[in-house]
Amino acid sequence: MSIPKALNQLRTLPFEDLGFASVDHHRALRQGFPEVILCEGKTSAQILAIAKKLLKSKGPFLATRADPTIAKRLTRLHRHAVYHEMARIVAVPDQTRQLEGHVVIVTAGTSDIPVAEEARVTAEIMGSQVSTLYDVGVAGIHRLLDRQAILHEARVVIVVAGMDGVLPSVVGGLIDRPIVAVPTSQGYGANFGGLAPLLTMLNACSSGIGVVNIDNGFGAGCLAHRINAGMVSPSKKKKVR
Amino acid sequence: MSIPKALNQLRTLPFEDLGFASVDHHRALRQGFPEVILCEGKTSAQILAIAKKLLKSKGPFLATRADPTIAKRLTRLHRHAVYHEMARIVAVPDQTRQLEGHVVIVTAGTSDIPVAEEARVTAEIMGSQVSTLYDVGVAGIHRLLDRQAILHEARVVIVVAGMDGVLPSVVGGLIDRPIVAVPTSQGYGANFGGLAPLLTMLNACSSGIGVVNIDNGFGAGCLAHRINAGMVSPSKKKKVR
Amino acid sequence: MSIPKALNQLRTLPFEDLGFASVDHHRALRQGFPEVILCEGKTSAQILAIAKKLLKSKGPFLATRADPTIAKRLTRLHRHAVYHEMARIVAVPDQTRQLEGHVVIVTAGTSDIPVAEEARVTAEIMGSQVSTLYDVGVAGIHRLLDRQAILHEARVVIVVAGMDGVLPSVVGGLIDRPIVAVPTSQGYGANFGGLAPLLTMLNACSSGIGVVNIDNGFGAGCLAHRINAGMVSPSKKKKVR
Amino acid sequence: MSIPKALNQLRTLPFEDLGFASVDHHRALRQGFPEVILCEGKTSAQILAIAKKLLKSKGPFLATRADPTIAKRLTRLHRHAVYHEMARIVAVPDQTRQLEGHVVIVTAGTSDIPVAEEARVTAEIMGSQVSTLYDVGVAGIHRLLDRQAILHEARVVIVVAGMDGVLPSVVGGLIDRPIVAVPTSQGYGANFGGLAPLLTMLNACSSGIGVVNIDNGFGAGCLAHRINAGMVSPSKKKKVR
Amino acid sequence: MSIPKALNQLRTLPFEDLGFASVDHHRALRQGFPEVILCEGKTSAQILAIAKKLLKSKGPFLATRADPTIAKRLTRLHRHAVYHEMARIVAVPDQTRQLEGHVVIVTAGTSDIPVAEEARVTAEIMGSQVSTLYDVGVAGIHRLLDRQAILHEARVVIVVAGMDGVLPSVVGGLIDRPIVAVPTSQGYGANFGGLAPLLTMLNACSSGIGVVNIDNGFGAGCLAHRINAGMVSPSKKKKVR
Amino acid sequence: MSIPKALNQLRTLPFEDLGFASVDHHRALRQGFPEVILCEGKTSAQILAIAKKLLKSKGPFLATRADPTIAKRLTRLHRHAVYHEMARIVAVPDQTRQLEGHVVIVTAGTSDIPVAEEARVTAEIMGSQVSTLYDVGVAGIHRLLDRQAILHEARVVIVVAGMDGVLPSVVGGLIDRPIVAVPTSQGYGANFGGLAPLLTMLNACSSGIGVVNIDNGFGAGCLAHRINAGMVSPSKKKKVR
Amino acid sequence: MSIPKALNQLRTLPFEDLGFASVDHHRALRQGFPEVILCEGKTSAQILAIAKKLLKSKGPFLATRADPTIAKRLTRLHRHAVYHEMARIVAVPDQTRQLEGHVVIVTAGTSDIPVAEEARVTAEIMGSQVSTLYDVGVAGIHRLLDRQAILHEARVVIVVAGMDGVLPSVVGGLIDRPIVAVPTSQGYGANFGGLAPLLTMLNACSSGIGVVNIDNGFGAGCLAHRINAGMVSPSKKKKVR
Amino acid sequence: MSIPKALNQLRTLPFEDLGFASVDHHRALRQGFPEVILCEGKTSAQILAIAKKLLKSKGPFLATRADPTIAKRLTRLHRHAVYHEMARIVAVPDQTRQLEGHVVIVTAGTSDIPVAEEARVTAEIMGSQVSTLYDVGVAGIHRLLDRQAILHEARVVIVVAGMDGVLPSVVGGLIDRPIVAVPTSQGYGANFGGLAPLLTMLNACSSGIGVVNIDNGFGAGCLAHRINAGMVSPSKKKKVR
Repeated sequence: MSIPKALNQLRTLPFEDLGFASVDHHRALRQGFPEVILCEGKTSAQILAIAKKLLKSKGPFLATRADPTIAKRLTRLHRHAVYHEMARIVAVPDQTRQLEGHVVIVTAGTSDIPVAEEARVTAEIMGSQVSTLYDVGVAGIHRLLDRQAILHEARVVIVVAGMDGVLPSVVGGLIDRPIVAVPTSQGYGANFGGLAPLLTMLNACSSGIGVVNIDNGFGAGCLAHRINAGMVSPSKKKKVR
Repeated sequence: MSIPKALNQLRTLPFEDLGFASVDHHRALRQGFPEVILCEGKTSAQILAIAKKLLKSKGPFLATRADPTIAKRLTRLHRHAVYHEMARIVAVPDQTRQLEGHVVIVTAGTSDIPVAEEARVTAEIMGSQVSTLYDVGVAGIHRLLDRQAILHEARVVIVVAGMDGVLPSVVGGLIDRPIVAVPTSQGYGANFGGLAPLLTMLNACSSGIGVVNIDNGFGAGCLAHRINAGMVSPSKKKKVR
Repeated sequence: MSIPKALNQLRTLPFEDLGFASVDHHRALRQGFPEVILCEGKTSAQILAIAKKLLKSKGPFLATRADPTIAKRLTRLHRHAVYHEMARIVAVPDQTRQLEGHVVIVTAGTSDIPVAEEARVTAEIMGSQVSTLYDVGVAGIHRLLDRQAILHEARVVIVVAGMDGVLPSVVGGLIDRPIVAVPTSQGYGANFGGLAPLLTMLNACSSGIGVVNIDNGFGAGCLAHRINAGMVSPSKKKKVR
Repeated sequence: MSIPKALNQLRTLPFEDLGFASVDHHRALRQGFPEVILCEGKTSAQILAIAKKLLKSKGPFLATRADPTIAKRLTRLHRHAVYHEMARIVAVPDQTRQLEGHVVIVTAGTSDIPVAEEARVTAEIMGSQVSTLYDVGVAGIHRLLDRQAILHEARVVIVVAGMDGVLPSVVGGLIDRPIVAVPTSQGYGANFGGLAPLLTMLNACSSGIGVVNIDNGFGAGCLAHRINAGMVSPSKKKKVR
Repeated sequence: MSIPKALNQLRTLPFEDLGFASVDHHRALRQGFPEVILCEGKTSAQILAIAKKLLKSKGPFLATRADPTIAKRLTRLHRHAVYHEMARIVAVPDQTRQLEGHVVIVTAGTSDIPVAEEARVTAEIMGSQVSTLYDVGVAGIHRLLDRQAILHEARVVIVVAGMDGVLPSVVGGLIDRPIVAVPTSQGYGANFGGLAPLLTMLNACSSGIGVVNIDNGFGAGCLAHRINAGMVSPSKKKKVR
Repeated sequence: MSIPKALNQLRTLPFEDLGFASVDHHRALRQGFPEVILCEGKTSAQILAIAKKLLKSKGPFLATRADPTIAKRLTRLHRHAVYHEMARIVAVPDQTRQLEGHVVIVTAGTSDIPVAEEARVTAEIMGSQVSTLYDVGVAGIHRLLDRQAILHEARVVIVVAGMDGVLPSVVGGLIDRPIVAVPTSQGYGANFGGLAPLLTMLNACSSGIGVVNIDNGFGAGCLAHRINAGMVSPSKKKKVR
Repeated sequence: MSIPKALNQLRTLPFEDLGFASVDHHRALRQGFPEVILCEGKTSAQILAIAKKLLKSKGPFLATRADPTIAKRLTRLHRHAVYHEMARIVAVPDQTRQLEGHVVIVTAGTSDIPVAEEARVTAEIMGSQVSTLYDVGVAGIHRLLDRQAILHEARVVIVVAGMDGVLPSVVGGLIDRPIVAVPTSQGYGANFGGLAPLLTMLNACSSGIGVVNIDNGFGAGCLAHRINAGMVSPSKKKKVR
Repeated sequence: MSIPKALNQLRTLPFEDLGFASVDHHRALRQGFPEVILCEGKTSAQILAIAKKLLKSKGPFLATRADPTIAKRLTRLHRHAVYHEMARIVAVPDQTRQLEGHVVIVTAGTSDIPVAEEARVTAEIMGSQVSTLYDVGVAGIHRLLDRQAILHEARVVIVVAGMDGVLPSVVGGLIDRPIVAVPTSQGYGANFGGLAPLLTMLNACSSGIGVVNIDNGFGAGCLAHRINAGMVSPSKKKKVR
């Protein structure tokens, strides 16, 4: 028995071979959302070819890290495609999706907003309701406290911070919900491209914090949505998918 | 107006000053669980004094990273206190807690089990149901696949892995639930005390993964419990707290 | 008691919500100086909107890391606004401020001057008198010794150095005043963007040295001013604020 | 005896001194392939001068990391010279070379393809047969399993992956052939220019994996060819060289 | 002129050559405090010989990082010598010293206390009044706020924190005094022996923070004392020295 | 279709669940060698329980990183089990294995021998013939050259080196065979536990070098065996397996 | 005695204060060579002003890291000024200098030549005779051996190498002269901007090697000249200075 | 022509194969000093066997990093063998060696002395005259200046420093001789085992500094001796060798 028969079976999952890409048409079933295109590192021709294949399926579409040039070409492919410039995302929403629970996104500073917006658009396209609180870092912590009621209504909170990255620790000391912490590369000197806030968040004294990669707004939005989606009662979830 | 009146108000939250420790008696209300003692870095006298204060309150008790010597002394303080040796935890459970949703903990290898056990005991004491799948790394991936039904029943999955830390990426490709990834310091050479699996997990291609600190089983258990707790319907949660 | 009443009180501190920024109008009272704009990482529109809000208050104004384009637009907002090109700062001074004590800023080389100037303008706008000694590194230590009388008159000394970053250690061996050490990213090779002088300064054998982030002239100027301000007799301080 | 006589003898190996380069005309005999030009870090004049010397010998020619400008000038030097744009290689094949065994190159994503192509062209010019499987990462592992028969036919497998770099570990769990793992600098945040997948691959739990430098497609192609070449029976090898 | 005459003059400052140590008898005049012995890295014989020389002068004496064995031998050398066990310091106070201003030392956790105590004993022996607030980290920030009046009375605040090191940023947002931040090596995993809190503190968003080396309680105490000493009116300082 | 049927099939591969370990009984078929026990990080009880399960199958057995205590207990489990002390391996050979091709292992120094021996025993137990050349580093390169005929007879060469790790580059310049490079943690100072030779080897100018983890003699032996095994003609391989 | 009189004396050493630079006119006496201008990090105006002051003195002149624009302006300041383009140096030689001993500079590759040329021009302007051997790395070690007679005639050898940086170790095994090793930033991937060859050289097994900073051709040329200058008999040195 | 004839010749250099060591009997001729044993990483049996072989030759003998146990056994092998305890060296001097020039060794602190002593014994056994100046760091720089005449008489200066490692930069500003800088692992916190002083020294602003590995007293002594030896006139050198 040189190769287990079982593995042959697994081959039957649907995908499409473009040579430079193997488009995974089974992902929506397995992961709850279709394949997402990370534009960075791909040529325009590759991005467009993959997008065309994915857009053949009904349902939502997401292309992240899209610069304005490729965004322009992508939005021409579908009449509901929208370019979210600050988030650098081209998205086609799935209007049948609608969830109850909601996600709150908090940033320490103004310069963390692009990453927060990537998270926001991602979570919304996936089906979560999102509220935002931007520029509420600890140098003026009352700006957060004033609006903390919104934190307590959240089912999950995303905290985005560069520089010293302390905001997730502080938020973690105030609430009992899961927190998704996103370090950003904002800062200078010994920030080392986001390493400093990344380490701060990993070492947080407060409990209940999961960390994603530096500047990974997409990953944070996706994780927050999964946490949020799990909180919805089965009857309501069925409508969505 | 030199100091805002508002801050005076905040002083009224209850805590107890032992000189070397300020025991936070409000944490159970604010965070959903009382203060937890991290034994590492504290003297035996400090640990015991803090423990005595905390044990005066009813409700669960948790002391992590407890070596056998301090564990012996701690377990004498309360008749329901138990030492979980592999997890290095002394715990007093709160028998009124009972949740529906459950957490699955997966390890890549046998040597990752102590960290996984720290996560397990933490989540259970906090009120989650936990199942475990140990030693199912990618060198023999069928060991995971054989029992994957349990993954699909989980509300959240904790994946614990040292060495290359690839297991969360693989699990992430199979399911649509939130994943808490825990790198361990198991390995040698260019593992650099867990840095290698930590970076692997932060850079995971699969979506929906939040990472905690190296060897931080407690943090993983706590985050997973918060995700799990959020999924329970309000009526049932009331019973618990 | 789900959320402490006390926290409600804290909300009353004044701030202004611009959506992308929460301008902190209480900072001058709490910190002794109004909010400062770090231009890096913000769009021109964001910078100008925040500046307009801050300039409504009387008192000093500071915008750091301003490139010539944004500087031109900022200086148009206020008739006393000045662009300090080498320091990359746009500032509006508060002419009522006047302090006795003074700060001395020393650089090891000519290429460290931009960071030193950021510190100088910051400390001056905050209200300190500043003297400078530039390019007096240890390759020709007599250049420092010749003018060391000025060091002994300082209430605090800022030492700015790139490459090997040894100057704070040497100055620290000569005087008994607090030293604020600023590593710069000047250098090449194993300088690693300022990491080398940062480590040198943190490990300084000489006593009485506090280190700020690489290239952080603003932080150094602010810390030096706070040390200097504390040395002034209360009667004189009242005039300033 | 100031200098051993023996070393004098070694001097007789042929090379050609161009002042800025010492062209090694003995390398084909010693290493099985002539000297290869790494274009990065050399001036156009240097590259062309070295290329002219090397092209005087019959046999294959390889210049890697060639940008389109230098590629245009290089391809004019020899009528069989071809520019492989994605691989950034200018090559003159040696049509007498023909091997039996074959190399399979696998990538985790589309953005890893340039490195994979560098490996492919290198191995082919050296005389190996190559097949490719692109974009088969673990987020949709069935894409690899569907075509795994080709893995089992390989004499050696090159696995190219950026981001988390987990694919070599997974492939290593499925086959018993030597694997050459190539980390790429594709990714962001805590990827640190390919450090993350490099560490993942060095720490792989699966056995039989050798790692080359980040983005080093040439090195991978060369190593894979040497492994493949060794597998051919002596009678067949004689034809090739 | 091979060697400048000027340098000959500098030779006349007093020091004593023990072969393995050059005891600097001029330091009290130049730096305001006699030479301090760092016991780590020296043999017992070396420590005792240096201590004997230093104790011949009247005035304070300080030996840091003293383990109990050497401490026992050192305390026998002088009848006022005291071993501060948690601070690991042997000290002889100078009873003529007395300062007005005071230093406040804050720790995030209980396990940061040894470093804080090293700072406390150092600052007190040098002549500062010190108050302490231990275990007031952000996981229960009300513990700090309750006693913040003491922060506002401080002339300088030392903040000691391991793990995520966020406390200095938070304290920095509340007061307008200079802050000396001390990262400790308390923590695990990606704490990397104190690197995480060190980077957090260097990147602090709040202003007015100077950082010392990891676990460097002595350096923090010394810097805080120098800041504090400068704030005292000249007439009072004369009494002290 | 919530979970693909195909995956169910894969479950049928044989493994044995011990709770703390999932012993993979299919590995010999899939990988050409049974599961190997890495003793580090496992308790004695775990090691012995896994060993007993594995020893029930006929065929070779390998337990690496075994200290003398566990080695003594393991060797009692099987009459052909031998403890290779310098290699820290307990092995049961499979006498039916016998290969033609051979592996040469070279070390730079005497202190690299334990890692080399781990590679040697691993490759031999797996079925390769091995020759060794120890302590032939570049400080006296003639020691290698004198015996280089053996290098040219090798099908694959393992080069083990600590400190500067230059030997693989030098060997790579002399031969045309694949090289497996193993950095060791031998050295001091800026060796950083083997990081220095690891980087040297990854950046080797010479071609045809694959690198394994620091001190990973097992991995090197396994990779070399796979390369060697592939070189044997099919008719002969059949005898072996 | 608040400030030692001795230090006043040291002030008399000559220097010139330009505000942004303190030109050290005593350096030629103290260090054997006038102050050298590192152009990187300075404005054109600063460079030209310093150059004018230095060129007032007779004797050699050296400005390193000069781009073509500033070089053009500098060469206009003195009729003997020459721009060495590959070395990026503007120099005015001192024709009275003439030394006997000579320095040999060796590079591993062609792309290391710019750094080697910086060393060559520096050493020559300082007064050493220099020979060069370029592109003699270990991939074809006979290229070095063929011309090794020149190594044995050197009083000091500079070895310049990027990528793996192994050449100094190999040269160190062949000769008994001091070696100055210069890592370059040539390479890619895990080269980390020259960190890899830097570590290789610091960990060299061969003896008698001193390392300078990455790409620091100037430093290497200067150190080699000092070693070489020391070897000349006193009678001959007098002529030179 | 499979293997060049020339290489056969090189094989004739004398060495002795002990299996675990290839003792290089030609090194004294090639390098000016016999092979030196680095005891760390070798077993006692290996050290003794190599020592016996080396002691058969007349001439000096050096074994470094020898702990007292192995030192005791080594000193029994030869009646002139001496254990230098602080230097951790067992040495047999060669009384025919005698050089004119001399080496000066300077340390910043008392705790750097063991490394300095390793350098001193090494240089002396190789034939250099050595003077020492210990504990003259920049916290009291007059201790160095007082005795600087000895620096000016040196032909080469070794500077040993841990913590901030600034002493070589300062010494480099005072003299025109080559400097060998040795970072030590003395220090704490962000010293990172000597990385901080290593980087300081590599980035030194002063010229003429070559750096050796952390704690590498042997390497420093050897390099200094080679520099010193080259300075002696040929007639005198002949006597020595």
